[in-house]
Order: sequence, then structure tokens, then C-alpha cells
Amino acid sequence: MSNFPISGTTRVVVHLAYPSHHLRTPGLFNALCQERGLNAVLVPWQVPPQGLAEAVAGLRGIENLAGVIVTIPHKTAISALCDSLSSTARFLGVANVVRRDSAGRFHGEMFDGRGLVLGLRERGHDVAGRQALLVGAGGAAAGIAEALLGAGVASLTLSNRSAPRAEALAARLRAAFAGRAIRVGPGDATGADLVVNGTSLGMYPGDALPVDVETLDPGTLVAEAVMEPDVTPLLKAAAARGCQTHRGVHMITGQIGLLVDFLLGASGGQPPDAGAARA
Amino acid sequence: MSNFPISGTTRVVVHLAYPSHHLRTPGLFNALCQERGLNAVLVPWQVPPQGLAEAVAGLRGIENLAGVIVTIPHKTAISALCDSLSSTARFLGVANVVRRDSAGRFHGEMFDGRGLVLGLRERGHDVAGRQALLVGAGGAAAGIAEALLGAGVASLTLSNRSAPRAEALAARLRAAFAGRAIRVGPGDATGADLVVNGTSLGMYPGDALPVDVETLDPGTLVAEAVMEPDVTPLLKAAAARGCQTHRGVHMITGQIGLLVDFLLGASGGQPPDAGAARA
Ligand SMILES: NC(=O)c1ccc[n+]([C@@H]2O[C@H](COP(=O)([O-])OP(=O)(O)OC[C@H]3O[C@@H](n4cnc5c(N)ncnc54)[C@H](OP(=O)(O)O)[C@@H]3O)[C@@H](O)[C@H]2O)c1
Ligand SMILES: NC(=O)c1ccc[n+]([C@@H]2O[C@H](COP(=O)([O-])OP(=O)(O)OC[C@H]3O[C@@H](n4cnc5c(N)ncnc54)[C@H](OP(=O)(O)O)[C@@H]3O)[C@@H](O)[C@H]2O)c1
Repeated sequence: MSNFPISGTTRVVVHLAYPSHHLRTPGLFNALCQERGLNAVLVPWQVPPQGLAEAVAGLRGIENLAGVIVTIPHKTAISALCDSLSSTARFLGVANVVRRDSAGRFHGEMFDGRGLVLGLRERGHDVAGRQALLVGAGGAAAGIAEALLGAGVASLTLSNRSAPRAEALAARLRAAFAGRAIRVGPGDATGADLVVNGTSLGMYPGDALPVDVETLDPGTLVAEAVMEPDVTPLLKAAAARGCQTHRGVHMITGQIGLLVDFLLGASGGQPPDAGAARA
Repeated sequence: MSNFPISGTTRVVVHLAYPSHHLRTPGLFNALCQERGLNAVLVPWQVPPQGLAEAVAGLRGIENLAGVIVTIPHKTAISALCDSLSSTARFLGVANVVRRDSAGRFHGEMFDGRGLVLGLRERGHDVAGRQALLVGAGGAAAGIAEALLGAGVASLTLSNRSAPRAEALAARLRAAFAGRAIRVGPGDATGADLVVNGTSLGMYPGDALPVDVETLDPGTLVAEAVMEPDVTPLLKAAAARGCQTHRGVHMITGQIGLLVDFLLGASGGQPPDAGAARA
């Protein structure tokens, strides 16, 4: 269904994805714009990888385009098409949102990790001071690791099937967060009061569990990056052990406010991180 | 304000214009989609003339883009960027709507003239059999002339400040509508039962009237292409003489159904006019 109040003065945001049918962000983003009285709309923009560069070039001249939200499979490719990147986006080499300034320059930012942290906060869970076990060392895990350290976890242990990948991520994190407790270890939650699954395990029937659930303490908070299914086998097993759980969808719901502020808010039109501007 | 029901499966139409703040079509188009239960939305897309080609190139790969609606100043330029044109769009050298097919090809059509004719019909006025006086020989007038002849006026007299321009348009119309009564004459409505202003006269204070209102018969229907002001001096003078009048805005309201059908209807995905495909 379409929307009556869209007019010639409406600012537009497009959601680059491929495919786009599963997107949850348009409904959430548009509802928040409505709630805040913002004359803006997010629409899906389904483009295959080989069409991304031309699609993005075609967006530069659209004067009422506030920006672009980006998801699979475009997050890495879009970061190379931006004129500047925030420090987080630069560190991760990905962007999930791009603001268009009035000169048509594109400023990339990455909110997935902060989405998880803010989603936890919205549900009463602060991560500061926690002993965190993060499983995974891919794109999602890197973003979550950066955000957990940024939000002040006391320690971060990375666990990944391919240990060298975890070692490499840990080394980069130690360089960015000097002096912090960053380790690589097994999928054992002993001593952790926050466990996050940042792998894709749980998406498919028959997947192994990402952590040894026997090691989960009932006081441990267990969070997911996997969104499909909504409640993963890990979350079920954790709940059965008495743990508090946090679904993958909250990585999205936790960042809607950030996306609206970044694209349409007071900071709109300013580069997200002037120091990150490319040479 | 934004729209709750926009989701990942929504088809998008963009409205190319420069500027776009005055557009009336988004509200009307989106209301009709809503009424018909179509999961589609029209959003403004403000792009300056020098950015048009790149903007259009960037739209080709967007798989959920149903098409593009086009207005000032892009109607001529867009027609050169289409892969095929309907016979009307080809005759006029302009397009005001472009459908994207599933292969990313763009098919141009021009509905402004038919919008005026259908707008009249919706308000109970058939043009078939009428003796029509059309003032103007520019872009709007050419589209109206083609549509009036297509809808079966008995005769068409063109009147324009620059007579050679009217002669040239008349010659082209005679070639396309062989055997029809197509004349060039003065701005005198004697004998006409339909008068249409297709010039820009009436937009600015102090503009002359496009026809000699003393020659208007009370039985004559007087229609406008000018939309701003909503009621032009010509329409006021015509109403004062007892004529029925028809506002310029109905060129838009009369074509909303055509636009929705063309972009989202049963014919969606097919070239508008196979015979018009370019070599
Ligand atoms: N909720 C959100 O907003 C959000 C945002 C982004 C991503 N995600 C989700 O996060 C998950 C990971 O995405 P990603 O982009 O990080 O993918 P990725 O870069 O391909 O990384 C995949 C990760 O999963 C691990 N893995 C995959 N199969 C495994 C198996 N059979 N056994 C053990 N480990 C396995 C990989 O380990 P190796 O290094 O050993 O291969 C790696 O750590 C996906 O489910 C994705 O949908 C969610
Ligand atoms: N309602 C709608 O949907 C719709 C759609 C399209 C256009 N329009 C309106 O139609 C009007 C004409 O647009 P267009 O695209 O056809 O413009 P155009 O191509 O520039 O043609 C302008 C026409 O107006 C005549 N004209 C201009 N100033 C005049 C004057 N001072 N005295 C006598 N004649 C004068 C021109 O005569 P010469 O040939 O002698 O210069 C020509 O016939 C505009 O008001 C436009 O907004 C409305």
C-alpha cells in the first residue's frame, strides 16, 4: 500500500539490498519518521551486485535523497563508493548507511554492532563491565566486537571455528583498543556473563550450537546476531538453562533511531566523522 | 510523513522533476494505489537537467522499480533515454511516464493530452464531434492537439502568437491524421464549442488573454492547460460569459488512472507500443 502524505517535499531514503523482499527496516524506519513528524520515507531498492556502482552513481544527483540504507550483499562494496567513512565503518571496511550531503557527497557509517548494544540497553541490559564471549570472526562478529569494546565490556573473548581468523580480528582490535582485555579462546562460556553468537550457526536445521550450552550460567545473558529463525536453537537452549536471551532482530530494532538521526536528524548534512574523510 | 505499509516487496515509482516541491501527482497516485490495493509507492526524485542521464542510468538496474513519472524540465530529454516510445511519445518527442520492464528496458509514453481529454470525460464532457479551437503551438499544445484528434474532434483550429509554429504543427498533425479538418487561424472562438488554452498565458499577472473572450458563446466549453493559478483569468472571463470551464489541474487528475495502469496494471512489463520500438 502506498502513502497519502508523500508529497513533492518529502525526503527519500532508499534501502539497497538483493533480494529485498525480506526487509524489516522500511516498516520500522517509516513508523519512527511518522512518530517524529518527519516528512521522509524509506523505500526498498533491489539491485544485484553487478549493478551497485551504477545505481549509486545515479543517486548522487538526487537532491531530495537523504541517503541510503544498505544490507546484504552490498555492505562491503558500498564502503568503497563513499567519499568518507566514519571511524567504525573504516575499521570494519563496511557501511550499512550512507548519508548524502547537499553537494552529493556520500558519508558512510556502520551501525550494526551499535544496534546490538543499543538493543540490549533498550531492554535493560548494559554491556559495560561485562565479561563477554563472542562467537564468530566474520563481518557481523567484527562489528559486534568493535561495538562491545566501544561500549566498555571488561573483557572480550573471541571464539571461532577458524582460529587464525579470530587471531587476526583480535590483533586488529588490540591495535584499535590499546590496553583492553582481548583474547581468543574456545566456545566455552565459563566465566562469561554475556555470550553473543556472531556466526551464522542457527540459521539452518542441523547446525551445531555455537557454544557449549552446558557451560552457560543461568546469570548469563545470551544474544544472537542470527535473525532467521527469530528464536534460534541457541536461544532456546539458553532459555532452558534459565538464561536471559536477546533475539537477532534487535540488532535492527536497536539501530532504527540511530539511522533516522544520522540520515534526517540534527547532524544531517554534516560528514559523520570529519577525521575519517578520505584523502 | 511516511507510510507504514511500505515493505521489502513494495514496487517503487520515482517522479523526476526539477524542482519537485510543487508536485501534485504523488498524493493522487498514491491514493489511487491505496484504493486499488496495489503495493506500490510514488516518491519525488529531484534532479537537475545536467544530472538526468546519470540518474536514469542508475534506475535501470533497480528490480523493484516499476517506472518513472517525468515532468518539467525533463520530458524531452527523457524521451531520448528510452529504449522504445509509444506512437504518441514518438510523435511529440516527449515522454511523461516511462515503464521499466523486467530486463531493465525503458518504454516511454506521453499522457498529458489524453489526461486533458479523460479529465473532460470524467466531468461529463465528450470531445468527439466538437469544433475545437486550441491556442498555442508549444509542447503542451502539441500533446493536446494529438489527443483531441485521437478522441475524434470534428475540426481543430490552431491559433498561436508565432504563426509559423502553428503552421508547422498543423502540417505534422495533417500527416499523422490524414483527411481530418486541421486549420490555423486567429484567437477567435466564433463557431467553436470547445476552446483550450495550451499557451502559458494566464500564469503571470498582466498576461493577455489567449482568446478574444467577446467571441465566446455561452455554450462553449473552455479548458485550461495552465495549472497555476488554479482558476486563470481566461476561466474567470469564460465563466462570466456563462461558459462551462475546466481547470488545468484536470490534465493531471485525468491521467492518474492511466499512469497507474501503465506502470502497475495488467499491461505492466510489456512495451507500450511494440511497433514504436526503436531500431
Ligand atoms: N541481526 C543483524 O542485524 C545482522 C547483521 C549482520 C549479520 N547478521 C547475521 O550474522 C550472521 C553472520 O554473518 P556474517 O556477515 O558475519 O557472515 P560471515 O562473514 O560469512 O561469517 C560467518 C561466521 O560464521 C562462522 N560459521 C559459519 N558456518 C559455520 C560452521 N558450520 N561452524 C562453525 N562456524 C561457522 C564462520 O566461521 P569461519 O570463520 O570458521 O568460517 C564465521 O565466523 C548471519 O546469520 C547474518 O545473517 C545479522
Ligand atoms: N496541466 C498540465 O498537466 C500541463 C502539462 C504541460 C504543460 N502545462 C502548461 O501549459 C503551458 C504551456 O507549456 P508548454 O510546455 O507548451 O510551453 P512552451 O512549449 O514554451 O510553449 C509556450 C506557448 O505559449 C505561447 N506564449 C507564451 N507567451 C506568450 C505571450 N506572451 N503571448 C502569446 N503567446 C505566448 C507560446 O507562443 P509562441 O510559440 O509564439 O512563443 C507557445 O505557444 C504552461 O503553462 C505549462 O505549465 C500544463
